Amino acid sequence: MPHRQPAAGPRTFGTATRGETVPTVPPASTETAADVTALLERGRTLATPVLRAAVDRLAPPMDTVAAYHFGWIDAAGNPAAGDGGKAVRPALAVLSAEVTGSAPETGVPGAVAVELVHNFSLLHDDLMDGDEQRRHRDTVWKVHGPAQAILVGDALFALANEVLLELGSVEAGRATRRLTTATRALIDGQAQDISYEHRDRVSVEECLEMEGNKTGALLACASSIGAVLGGADDATADALERYGYHLGLAFQAVDDLLGIWGDPEATGKQTWSDLRQRKKSLPVVAALAAGGPASERLGEILAADAKSSDFENFSEEEFAARAALIEEAGGREWTAEEARRQHTIAVGALDAVTMPDRVRAAFAALADFVVVRKR
Amino acid sequence: MPHRQPAAGPRTFGTATRGETVPTVPPASTETAADVTALLERGRTLATPVLRAAVDRLAPPMDTVAAYHFGWIDAAGNPAAGDGGKAVRPALAVLSAEVTGSAPETGVPGAVAVELVHNFSLLHDDLMDGDEQRRHRDTVWKVHGPAQAILVGDALFALANEVLLELGSVEAGRATRRLTTATRALIDGQAQDISYEHRDRVSVEECLEMEGNKTGALLACASSIGAVLGGADDATADALERYGYHLGLAFQAVDDLLGIWGDPEATGKQTWSDLRQRKKSLPVVAALAAGGPASERLGEILAADAKSSDFENFSEEEFAARAALIEEAGGREWTAEEARRQHTIAVGALDAVTMPDRVRAAFAALADFVVVRKR
Repeated sequence: MPHRQPAAGPRTFGTATRGETVPTVPPASTETAADVTALLERGRTLATPVLRAAVDRLAPPMDTVAAYHFGWIDAAGNPAAGDGGKAVRPALAVLSAEVTGSAPETGVPGAVAVELVHNFSLLHDDLMDGDEQRRHRDTVWKVHGPAQAILVGDALFALANEVLLELGSVEAGRATRRLTTATRALIDGQAQDISYEHRDRVSVEECLEMEGNKTGALLACASSIGAVLGGADDATADALERYGYHLGLAFQAVDDLLGIWGDPEATGKQTWSDLRQRKKSLPVVAALAAGGPASERLGEILAADAKSSDFENFSEEEFAARAALIEEAGGREWTAEEARRQHTIAVGALDAVTMPDRVRAAFAALADFVVVRKR
Repeated sequence: MPHRQPAAGPRTFGTATRGETVPTVPPASTETAADVTALLERGRTLATPVLRAAVDRLAPPMDTVAAYHFGWIDAAGNPAAGDGGKAVRPALAVLSAEVTGSAPETGVPGAVAVELVHNFSLLHDDLMDGDEQRRHRDTVWKVHGPAQAILVGDALFALANEVLLELGSVEAGRATRRLTTATRALIDGQAQDISYEHRDRVSVEECLEMEGNKTGALLACASSIGAVLGGADDATADALERYGYHLGLAFQAVDDLLGIWGDPEATGKQTWSDLRQRKKSLPVVAALAAGGPASERLGEILAADAKSSDFENFSEEEFAARAALIEEAGGREWTAEEARRQHTIAVGALDAVTMPDRVRAAFAALADFVVVRKR
């Protein structure tokens, strides 16, 4: 992919202040942005009760551990409001059912299964990565111990298949097969993520492949699973998966921008979060691949950081200096451009599918939302 | 289940020497025992190449980690002979296909999926339980680290669904649904196992429920999955599951006997293995539930052991004394009787199913093998 390497020098794009790093999307589809809140709310309203009923099936203490993970109760077991996240996946799953002319409700078991798989991966990844916090709260392994994190993750994965297969239909079998493919990709992505941690350099291609596996594959499944449950043919499902896959890459590019330049108030993460974790995210690998003085200087600094025993105690200014170098080398603007590029491919994939205009506009609005967000 | 509580005093049964603790089975079906070697060999021969091909699909380094787990390579990556285990599950899966008049090959994807789920659970359970050895070898988390044990376990679980669902048939969907139910039970059983570790007393009923989940459910699936893939109706599949479930309970009762009185040379475990691990296995819980002087004395000793800081250094004689008390309280013979009882229920469940005499005899022979074994 040499033609997509970042330009050597900085170009004018966006702003340099933290919290305003989101790429601009084409104006045409932003007109529908007002619908997004309703679309997200619909997905959440339809999926959450079914998700909670599914989790309630788990035997104690797994039901409690899972409820803590989802934010429905606190560590002491008391009911909690819970930050349910952005709920983009459930919104996409129920919307995709409408592609086939089915009611959005047809997509609900798919939405729930996708959420269960997503949360299975969070439970296991947090343990594997040693992450102690997620969404401003202690992670499950930190509160309930590693064994419960493994066990409840396994249980959510099994429950995902159960929720689909108990429908007993041919469509449910097809949906489960696609979900399984996505889950395998998710696991491949985590394997890549772990192996990259031990390497000095990761190429832009490797980073995109990993992000496609970790984020693209499940968003692809979310964007098509309702349609599959509604009886869509494979060509339709494949096109919707393409939309979701590239939307996932756009989502992840924005996430990588927010991981460095995001507003901690909005993201719930520390300042320069990904830099503190030495994460080889897109802006970093793009900056390192760009060449030129800033890129080379960044490479030297990060190599020294990797060996530093004092890294934990670095000051705000030291991280800010690294962020500035990444930006100077072009990593920030390349990643913003990549988000726009993936957004364009995603929306373009919808052209291959016949669907009501209202549904198409909703897919476009959700795509815009993913690229223009601050958390 | 008070009528199944062990008798207070010892009855004459079997022998008291280690390595000869297996219950006697009814003579009628032992005549077919000669076929068992061929049945096990057939299952292994049909399933292993497909299992290896499935595992080869995993991305590096997961393929290597999985190959180590299965015993196909050693820790250094060199090919190894590997102790493939008894291979009862593959033998049952391919045999069950013949119930429907299908070729044994029809059951192969089912055999492979069941093996993948079984090994997913071993990888995760060994990590959760902190077990460092399995089949005379270091466990995966010990050799490749906890993250790989979690990740490769997840991958094998996903692969199990993939192997079935890629068949694309209605039968494959039904088989996957039954496998999912079994997997959920497996996870429930592990949750119970973990929670029982922290308790002073476990009832015989709780122990049987846990063993039904951990061992019965997957053997139930193995005994029916080939038939399901061959198009068997639900009543046939349910009856075969009953056979497998009770066979699993018989298997586990024998395992619990071998865990205390088994010959280390044959089992590959330490002497008094389950006692060293303070495992609340059937002979122990049955002895504690029996009442009488030996039972009460055992209860006092095990309660003191639970608090002892010197337990790790106990002598052979100290463990032998505990084993003798369990036997004196009736725990050994109750467990042997339970194995026979479950064996009888298992074989009886076959009466509900129409199948060729040859296939019925093979199911009976495999049931006998499970109860009469030394490892």
